[in-house]
Amino acid sequence: MSVNLLIRQATLVTVNARDEVVENGDLAIAAGRIVGVGTAPAGFAADRVLDGRGRIVLPGLINTHTHLSMTLMRNYADDLAFWPWLLERIKPLEDHLVADDVRIGARLGLAELIRGGTTCFHDMYFHLEHVADEVARTGLRARLCGALFDNSGQGAALLRAAVDLHDAWHGKADGRVTVGLAPHSAYLCSPPYLREILQEAERRGCGLHVHLAETEREIADSLERHGVTPAQQLAELGCFRVPTVAAHGIYLSEADQRLLRDGGVSVAHNPGSNLKLANGIAPVQQLLDNGVNVSLGTDGAASNNNLNMFEEMHLAALLQKWLRRDAEALPAREVLRMATIRGAQALKLEAEIGSLEVGKQADVIVLDAAQPHLAPRHDPVALLVYSAQAADVATVIVAGRILMEDRVLQTIDEASLLAQATAQTRSLLDRAAR
Amino acid sequence: MSVNLLIRQATLVTVNARDEVVENGDLAIAAGRIVGVGTAPAGFAADRVLDGRGRIVLPGLINTHTHLSMTLMRNYADDLAFWPWLLERIKPLEDHLVADDVRIGARLGLAELIRGGTTCFHDMYFHLEHVADEVARTGLRARLCGALFDNSGQGAALLRAAVDLHDAWHGKADGRVTVGLAPHSAYLCSPPYLREILQEAERRGCGLHVHLAETEREIADSLERHGVTPAQQLAELGCFRVPTVAAHGIYLSEADQRLLRDGGVSVAHNPGSNLKLANGIAPVQQLLDNGVNVSLGTDGAASNNNLNMFEEMHLAALLQKWLRRDAEALPAREVLRMATIRGAQALKLEAEIGSLEVGKQADVIVLDAAQPHLAPRHDPVALLVYSAQAADVATVIVAGRILMEDRVLQTIDEASLLAQATAQTRSLLDRAAR
Repeated sequence: MSVNLLIRQATLVTVNARDEVVENGDLAIAAGRIVGVGTAPAGFAADRVLDGRGRIVLPGLINTHTHLSMTLMRNYADDLAFWPWLLERIKPLEDHLVADDVRIGARLGLAELIRGGTTCFHDMYFHLEHVADEVARTGLRARLCGALFDNSGQGAALLRAAVDLHDAWHGKADGRVTVGLAPHSAYLCSPPYLREILQEAERRGCGLHVHLAETEREIADSLERHGVTPAQQLAELGCFRVPTVAAHGIYLSEADQRLLRDGGVSVAHNPGSNLKLANGIAPVQQLLDNGVNVSLGTDGAASNNNLNMFEEMHLAALLQKWLRRDAEALPAREVLRMATIRGAQALKLEAEIGSLEVGKQADVIVLDAAQPHLAPRHDPVALLVYSAQAADVATVIVAGRILMEDRVLQTIDEASLLAQATAQTRSLLDRAAR
Repeated sequence: MSVNLLIRQATLVTVNARDEVVENGDLAIAAGRIVGVGTAPAGFAADRVLDGRGRIVLPGLINTHTHLSMTLMRNYADDLAFWPWLLERIKPLEDHLVADDVRIGARLGLAELIRGGTTCFHDMYFHLEHVADEVARTGLRARLCGALFDNSGQGAALLRAAVDLHDAWHGKADGRVTVGLAPHSAYLCSPPYLREILQEAERRGCGLHVHLAETEREIADSLERHGVTPAQQLAELGCFRVPTVAAHGIYLSEADQRLLRDGGVSVAHNPGSNLKLANGIAPVQQLLDNGVNVSLGTDGAASNNNLNMFEEMHLAALLQKWLRRDAEALPAREVLRMATIRGAQALKLEAEIGSLEVGKQADVIVLDAAQPHLAPRHDPVALLVYSAQAADVATVIVAGRILMEDRVLQTIDEASLLAQATAQTRSLLDRAAR
């Protein structure tokens, strides 16, 4: 599978500590890892050479908040507020989910992720053993976290499934699949249940994936019920003793932000979903200024309605400028870091992925930049954030394996996938209507 | 050039008065006009048949605020506030513009517009005879408006050039090129100059294209200098007696909005540029509720940084939901109207373009919807606004002529264009540096 690859004469946007951009450089890959950035090591013998002229090479994007299988509900319920969207439209479908919905939905999502240059994602959902299986087969990298809540009597069963997923899948598929636990939120998990989840996480040394401070109502309810904000509650329960990624983080006080910083918690920013559900704009620049790591995510395709990290980068940059009334806020370079190395940091994988550096996993994407909307070339980083589209990604490599080459998927049969997705969606709608 | 075309078995998103969507329908085109929507007329003989299966057909998008030739400055000056961006970075380049910059910049912009499904654009710039020439040759539809200001002693010369453009080009290229006048703004045009422009416009029966209420400072300065808002000033001078498109319209009081409605003025909304320069979010839903027509635009590629109307649709919908704290605000259907029929209304071309209806010009785009990020198919209109990318446009037809087929441009040599754009940009930078 893994051969010696050489990408020649490309623009390399490294996202290393100095944000170096190498013009007309080579990228060498051996045994699934990067062995040369700029020039290949002496004596490097390439099995395959990819022409990098007119192309921009960068680390694969890291989508730190997804519900991948929800692709089947894309464009199913739009222009609705968060609670009716969730409770009246999405939940009635999810009540009828079967394993094949999760599997086919995940496969559809994986095809979209690869096409859009995402090489690693952080998922929260149910029946994730089927997602893990698809990830193993299609070649992406994923942190999968079983969704947990105990407001409906399912707490014990969900936790059992999530822990079983960990024990069965953590570190599998050559280490591409890792597993965490996903307490849905402080509002759907009781304090004793959160303590139990934390205990399981500490026992296994795995991290948490949680929704936090997504709506104003969530904060008001928490203050009324518990007398503290959700961030305070999670901190007091000890949740931040394990690596935690908090999705959304829109309504965070300065005190909340200090708790996140001190706990090493990362915020996964989801600008598209947050606007679409009219929830708000996370204070990304303020979080960064306060020392909190902020990564980027799409959320599920039912509230976005795509898994397009280029669109999220563009949105994230634009929104902070407006939120801060400062066009210099969140510049392109910082947004690209959020979509790459900061995503790796959120998952504690920064030693392995997130930048083009010798020794790291070869998770690499190649953009076709010889297109009218990407010309002329003044600043390749601004070009990636402000001008590019997901469809500009031509080639995707994960751990040295080519998953897409010149826009042709190598590990998924796309035509049959589209037919399967249509049939499975019809089956889901039929089940829900019965 | 113009043959009898038949697109077979497609999803037709008509954007007619009833927002009809026809599944598995045919679209028939003869002599450059639409002659059948849903089914071809009896006895229709097609010279060419395009397979519409898996495709979505809709009216070509109408970009109602551009500075097309500024593509050469794409990604040249980013993460800067409006005034330093304009005065310290862009203006020094524009002071050295020559005809070939305008021509090559326009050609690059036209290629991008076609690729992204825009079939008609509304431009404001200099040396537009070169843009007109490129439009005529490449097959798009355009309303071109010479930029006018008299704050630097160039007022008379600019007005002469703009009027000459009208007399030379209005109605040319089979009617695809029309011409208006573009007083830059109330802040760069003196009242006597605005009166002179209005007189020329009334004499010729042509419209105005103006920047209005783009920044808070513009409003404050106008109140201080003239004692009225810019909208009031333009209204009092009589400008709204002729058809006027006001770009931006971010800071408009209720009284301003009534003046626009009563004057039949359309607001061209540019959400990407307005956020990027930290200028603000136009009150689109409020304007529509107050009876003002609102269309969509990208602004120039120097402040966007692309001419991607799909991105602007997505942005426009998301931003209103947040601005109004109401996820039901500006639903997908309304945004699509802004990008099509409302754009036609802004240009007073609604009898000719903006929807798929029998008798209208065949300005039609075809999306390749058989892709992972566009599956499954719950709602084709939500799909266009929330999930699609510009690169999903496969085929573009203007006045019955195919300008792009299956993503291959038919009237522009793309490889040589990209080389020309690079060389011309280098030449511009060299001139400005001397």
